[in-house]
Amino acid sequence: MEKLGEGKTKEVYLLDGQHVLLRFKDSITAGDGAKSDVLPGKGVLNAQTSAILFRLLERHGVETHYVGMEDERTMIVKRLKMVPVEVVLRNVATGSIVKRLPIGEGEVFQPPIVEFFLKDDTRHDPLLNYHHMRYLKLFSEEEARKVEDLAVKVNEVLKKVVEEAGFVLYDFKLEFGRLDNRLILGDELSLDSMRVRDRSGRILDKDLYRRGFPLEVVRDSYSEFLDKLRRVV
Amino acid sequence: MEKLGEGKTKEVYLLDGQHVLLRFKDSITAGDGAKSDVLPGKGVLNAQTSAILFRLLERHGVETHYVGMEDERTMIVKRLKMVPVEVVLRNVATGSIVKRLPIGEGEVFQPPIVEFFLKDDTRHDPLLNYHHMRYLKLFSEEEARKVEDLAVKVNEVLKKVVEEAGFVLYDFKLEFGRLDNRLILGDELSLDSMRVRDRSGRILDKDLYRRGFPLEVVRDSYSEFLDKLRRVV
Repeated sequence: MEKLGEGKTKEVYLLDGQHVLLRFKDSITAGDGAKSDVLPGKGVLNAQTSAILFRLLERHGVETHYVGMEDERTMIVKRLKMVPVEVVLRNVATGSIVKRLPIGEGEVFQPPIVEFFLKDDTRHDPLLNYHHMRYLKLFSEEEARKVEDLAVKVNEVLKKVVEEAGFVLYDFKLEFGRLDNRLILGDELSLDSMRVRDRSGRILDKDLYRRGFPLEVVRDSYSEFLDKLRRVV
Repeated sequence: MEKLGEGKTKEVYLLDGQHVLLRFKDSITAGDGAKSDVLPGKGVLNAQTSAILFRLLERHGVETHYVGMEDERTMIVKRLKMVPVEVVLRNVATGSIVKRLPIGEGEVFQPPIVEFFLKDDTRHDPLLNYHHMRYLKLFSEEEARKVEDLAVKVNEVLKKVVEEAGFVLYDFKLEFGRLDNRLILGDELSLDSMRVRDRSGRILDKDLYRRGFPLEVVRDSYSEFLDKLRRVV
């Protein structure tokens, strides 16, 4: 099977003209790839978490690239022309925004804050505004607004299910691709791309890894979240 | 006379309830204040350049804080509640944007790119989007769009006069303030806040200082620009 590419956490294979396979690897990385480890089982956990959430979003009318599972760590998805932009929606302030701006850890954003970042590790994923995205031919302003509306809709669905599972959704990152002039949600939805805390503030997401917790703690946390999601979806 | 405040390049005095005096100092700074010098004559040059350009903008229907001159380095201006945001309009790529984004020196933006930055030296003036400005109570989205339209209008006027003077306007920075619910152009318009090059690429603006040219070269250049402006306005 022709390999189309490989990212930090996924391999991409051509299935047919319209579909590709996303194979979730066991690697975990942080700091634009500066820190990297292998965490056995993580690929399966993130593939399963993503599958549950993509199916949930589809049922709520959000078009995603999800088609089905080839095996427990390999997703069959629509072949999209990906836009190299990370769309971040924040409900609660943490991470880069509290370093960049005069905003304190834990401040609540209502309505949420949406940000666009260029996927460019060498430049540390710089923030983009509508003008930059138009000039760099990433999203027109009309598309960027549509993407913001989609992010808000995704938030409504994810926030609710994460709450039902007993947790709080701080923020998440989405990536979109084009297919026949439509913008479709791609990539993954997992604890690599969402920040989830319990009500006491205990971290369940990749910040555990960023902050140097042992790999087993990270895996147990990803596993706990998947179990609790399965009970409520 | 009561001193209301002092910035890196200007002192502010209370004239009456509605007006303040802006006294342009001879200091020149760069790198969020990391580099700083005294350049005798610069205060007068920037006050005079700003006065010419504010008057020109007023004649073209852009409301500014300019009222008149108290002396050759001291401007009488309307007392505004300043918004701590720098509004940057770029016609030609240079400076921070070519470091931040995959955009090459000298690329032409048509339409121009507008950016908003928080005035915060300790955070190195971070880029803002509409969501940040709303949350930080700087500009509502509606106000931000109005400010962008004003920046485009200012550009049309400045670009033309700079061209008539024999130069090219690469970019400029504006600051706005509120008065009776109106957004009014404040601060200054000088070679400290505009990038102006001649057609061969020779720098006339504060980049001369940033790049370490002798102070006399900087002063001669600011003086040359003011002379040429006076001939065409």
